[in-house]
Amino acid sequence: MLKVTFKQQGSDDVEIFASAHENLLALARKANVAIDAPCSGNASCGKCRVKLVSGELHSPKSRHITDEEYAAGWRLACISEVVADVVIEVPDIASAYKSRMKVADLSSKAEIEIFEKIQKEIEAAGIPFKNSYLSFTVRLDVPSLDNTMPDNERLLRAVGALYPDLRPNMSFAVLQKLPDVLREADFVVRCIVRRTHHCLELLDICPATDTTPLCGLAVDIGTTTVSALLVDLQSGAILAKASAGNGQIRYGADVINRIVESSKEGGRERLQKAIVEETLNPMFRNMCAHAKVQPERVYCAVFASNSTMNHLLVGVNANPLRMEPYIPAFFETDAVHARDLRLCINPDAPVVIAPNIGSYVGGDITAGTLASMIWHKPEMSVFIDLGTNGEIVFGNSDFLMSCACSAGPAFEGGDISCGMRATDGAIEACTIDPQTMEPSFEIIGEPGQKPVGLCGSGIIDVISELYKHGIINAKGLFVREGKRVKRDGFGSGSYVLAFKEEADSVKDIVLTEADIDNFVRAKGAIFSAINTLLSSLDFDVSMVEKVYVAGGIGSGINMKNAIGIGMFPDVEVEKYEYIGNSSLCGAYAMLLSDAAREKVLELAHSMTYLELSTTPGYMDAFVAACFIPHTDASLFPSVVQDFGGQE
Amino acid sequence: MLKVTFKQQGSDDVEIFASAHENLLALARKANVAIDAPCSGNASCGKCRVKLVSGELHSPKSRHITDEEYAAGWRLACISEVVADVVIEVPDIASAYKSRMKVADLSSKAEIEIFEKIQKEIEAAGIPFKNSYLSFTVRLDVPSLDNTMPDNERLLRAVGALYPDLRPNMSFAVLQKLPDVLREADFVVRCIVRRTHHCLELLDICPATDTTPLCGLAVDIGTTTVSALLVDLQSGAILAKASAGNGQIRYGADVINRIVESSKEGGRERLQKAIVEETLNPMFRNMCAHAKVQPERVYCAVFASNSTMNHLLVGVNANPLRMEPYIPAFFETDAVHARDLRLCINPDAPVVIAPNIGSYVGGDITAGTLASMIWHKPEMSVFIDLGTNGEIVFGNSDFLMSCACSAGPAFEGGDISCGMRATDGAIEACTIDPQTMEPSFEIIGEPGQKPVGLCGSGIIDVISELYKHGIINAKGLFVREGKRVKRDGFGSGSYVLAFKEEADSVKDIVLTEADIDNFVRAKGAIFSAINTLLSSLDFDVSMVEKVYVAGGIGSGINMKNAIGIGMFPDVEVEKYEYIGNSSLCGAYAMLLSDAAREKVLELAHSMTYLELSTTPGYMDAFVAACFIPHTDASLFPSVVQDFGGQE
Repeated sequence: MLKVTFKQQGSDDVEIFASAHENLLALARKANVAIDAPCSGNASCGKCRVKLVSGELHSPKSRHITDEEYAAGWRLACISEVVADVVIEVPDIASAYKSRMKVADLSSKAEIEIFEKIQKEIEAAGIPFKNSYLSFTVRLDVPSLDNTMPDNERLLRAVGALYPDLRPNMSFAVLQKLPDVLREADFVVRCIVRRTHHCLELLDICPATDTTPLCGLAVDIGTTTVSALLVDLQSGAILAKASAGNGQIRYGADVINRIVESSKEGGRERLQKAIVEETLNPMFRNMCAHAKVQPERVYCAVFASNSTMNHLLVGVNANPLRMEPYIPAFFETDAVHARDLRLCINPDAPVVIAPNIGSYVGGDITAGTLASMIWHKPEMSVFIDLGTNGEIVFGNSDFLMSCACSAGPAFEGGDISCGMRATDGAIEACTIDPQTMEPSFEIIGEPGQKPVGLCGSGIIDVISELYKHGIINAKGLFVREGKRVKRDGFGSGSYVLAFKEEADSVKDIVLTEADIDNFVRAKGAIFSAINTLLSSLDFDVSMVEKVYVAGGIGSGINMKNAIGIGMFPDVEVEKYEYIGNSSLCGAYAMLLSDAAREKVLELAHSMTYLELSTTPGYMDAFVAACFIPHTDASLFPSVVQDFGGQE
Repeated sequence: MLKVTFKQQGSDDVEIFASAHENLLALARKANVAIDAPCSGNASCGKCRVKLVSGELHSPKSRHITDEEYAAGWRLACISEVVADVVIEVPDIASAYKSRMKVADLSSKAEIEIFEKIQKEIEAAGIPFKNSYLSFTVRLDVPSLDNTMPDNERLLRAVGALYPDLRPNMSFAVLQKLPDVLREADFVVRCIVRRTHHCLELLDICPATDTTPLCGLAVDIGTTTVSALLVDLQSGAILAKASAGNGQIRYGADVINRIVESSKEGGRERLQKAIVEETLNPMFRNMCAHAKVQPERVYCAVFASNSTMNHLLVGVNANPLRMEPYIPAFFETDAVHARDLRLCINPDAPVVIAPNIGSYVGGDITAGTLASMIWHKPEMSVFIDLGTNGEIVFGNSDFLMSCACSAGPAFEGGDISCGMRATDGAIEACTIDPQTMEPSFEIIGEPGQKPVGLCGSGIIDVISELYKHGIINAKGLFVREGKRVKRDGFGSGSYVLAFKEEADSVKDIVLTEADIDNFVRAKGAIFSAINTLLSSLDFDVSMVEKVYVAGGIGSGINMKNAIGIGMFPDVEVEKYEYIGNSSLCGAYAMLLSDAAREKVLELAHSMTYLELSTTPGYMDAFVAACFIPHTDASLFPSVVQDFGGQE
């Protein structure tokens, strides 16, 4: 037995016992130590760098590790075997986008206001915010020797008398606690029920004196980031809001790697456990604690997530999603309840999953499309959801067409040295002085908050500013020198946003050429997807009347800069609108409105899907878009004008 | 930490660690060592005798232990505290009725024939043997790039096309394995479904080549004995049959003690675990293995058990059953599925529980009444179910009235020194030579089987013979001497049925005065219940046209002898019929016939219940019946005649 100790900045050491020749990355996963391994362990991406502090590893050299680095102890975890007791340092960069969970302070109303605004728009479109949950009090006859009706008959008859048109039935959980609650409550009880078709499902009972609200959860499981709302099912009030990194991240950064991992022996269980037990349950418990509600009082959960996340949540084989002909296991389903997934909420709570149209257009988009409202308006609109996958929907009240592209986690700060999600300490906006090259920031958090890293909107600004001032060229390479431009041994440049003494960090906050390259590929994927989708319909950018941008990139996104780097089409900046997390907003609507749930199904059925990977010209369009702003400058007339024709 | 070692004949030693002053009976229960403790641990019954082999116990003397016995190491476990490492011998007598599980050889057709006969009678009464389970094969289109319908839609549409009037839906288990099974089966699959109202519930899918039968379980959980049938839900064939002791026995011999135990901290979980995990699941697995069927292929379980057993199975508070006004938690319920109880069968299998009318008239009687057929006949009939509780139903096709009495486990061999259930080695019939007092037996098992103990029908014969030949008197005390009559130090007699060298045992097989007293109380409870029930309706024994006797007492029951000891009313022996395990038979009918299930509900609703404990005269009638045959000899004219007026 060998002992492996993982040291992580800001965390306790983690120890695990290993057999000789066990793989270090596999051990880290077993020990719940997050090591960034987007390629899921085949030495191709070079991200899983760790530092051998003491002991010995069998670990071949790799093109990703220089001789100097190797001498200093750096190794790739995925090709390292344990052969002695070892102490391993896991760099903070590896867990950069496994940010701590955050239960948001609801006093900051900015995001809540988006929900309220969209709710009003949905209601104005004739979709009432009304669901099938209700609660009421019944006063039962107290049993006596002359009235010996069994407890369940007694309760069901009383409920049936109140709702004579509906057949009442009770869940097992209610049956099991029935005699206790009835007697504790002196036979005056509050019933929590759900109407379905001709039935009244009795989900819970409590003494009539207990007035805890009926709660529901709206959840967006992103490949990188998970967000959720705890909602009062009757008033619609948001009781708590939280976000956290997706615990599956250690099994690969993108959906393909996750599916590959899930197809291995025991993989489905591992990935389900990572999302349910490591991510969702702690998050739900925190939210409930914050709102002072028992998790058992959560009677519904709506998930608006991409198809892969939906499959991995349910624990169903996701492999057909990545293999031709790309078939999801389910479109929608009413077969899933909280107990089936071991969610920590009421075991009988239905788990509603926004419908999956195809492998790459999942519930995040079908729910998000509802929230975008493009289906209700005559204007030709583009709806862009920026996540690890980028999804685009184009259309109006007459038609909807969608496509999806793999952007990687860059928009959420993943695959970026100092990237992070749009939470406290994130640089969300930036300008750079053209002469001195000194930066100015807007940082998320309280006044005086020091910078911790860069979120998506900040990266857009930094790249835009670097390009505009001729610090980098169209290929993203540094072409000016200065105090804030550093070069490594190979001459590769990086821009120092904050030296470590300026930052809340043990190292400088930098944006490297590798980071810029990652981001440019992500923006290139988005831009070429939009263009290919429009072209397939013989539409032109000039015909676009509105562009809705959604996703965790941050509300501070500067549309002009996003156009400037060639991420979005060059149409008037006034046509752009940031609509926040549209998936979560759609899930919120589905939780509170049965009609919204129906509408999402209808939208999903009517939406056409364009498979980009089999669309001629997409790959060429992507390659052409991997420049700043684009190899074809004529697509960006305003950029050429503003930026003075830089190349 | 102290070490406690339990030694049991025929079993491995069991060790458990204990803190100083832990209670020995509680430790035995923790260690799953069966110690007979019908009073559930308050030193009142004196049954939990164990022998201290080495070490030390703090254990006061008790009236149940003589000085000699105390000196020899005998202690009551329920009042003993562990104060040092100890070795404890647990007498075999304690585990006498915790017989080994038995999966019956179906080649012995006697009991199966009873089921077939009753099935024919039920069908003849207009109740078709038809249930809602069916299976069929569907051939799906194989997905392609032009046909990308998600798996669940693909299957549900194909099923919907076959049954256009029903709304198909699928269970979570089906959803979770759907992509795997579809692809393994090349999209030609067998669907296992259940029709309900307007729905078609898809319970399971498998490749079309898999033709395993759809199975169901009929189960009778008795307080002492559990019996079950594994049945082909479509053909009705009995695939396996089993019986075992109820693992809850160590928490008390009767329902009151079980309820008391279940009301203690963690008690509900302990008792549920004892029945589900220790009794039912091993039994079900054995039966499935015997029939070569996966337990997941069992899609329904019907339970016909007494009210307390039903409550403890479901894990619901049973305390209101024993407290005025004696209310069950449920009459019938459709809220329970196998997963809720952690039964090892298909998790979505509905658990059907024959309805509980009251605290002491449960599903065993409502289902048993169906099987007795008394509800279909014009003759005034008595239906007697001999279990740990004795239940009586009187009536005909016009009315039904029921009552229940606590008989104790004597009919199943419990509370009898050498008692056992009616399985191999049980003496099921006996005659005794009037002169020599030598016995002759019928023993259950292969020819040459040596006697192991006495089952209920054997005890009736022995007591009847001893009384008839003047060996015991009307009070059950020995009044003749001889080689086979032993006396202990206090002059208390016992009859040696088999000296240990004649028996398959390490000790003599005897029937003691204490055993006779226990049995006489049990038979007295039954007789006085029948008489009180008839009297309450102003009926007389002479008006009884038919008596159906059911229960685990053994098919060898000699009705004449049962009358002779005053257990049954003195009517013509031709009016008696033994109908086997009627509860199990009723459960079997409910499993195979939805109409039978409806009929049982109807019978349960129409049956009147007489609460004996509040009926004037019952206690006096019971006391008067605790003689052989009765204090009022005029009630047994044929006995007086036959037996020559013995007293």
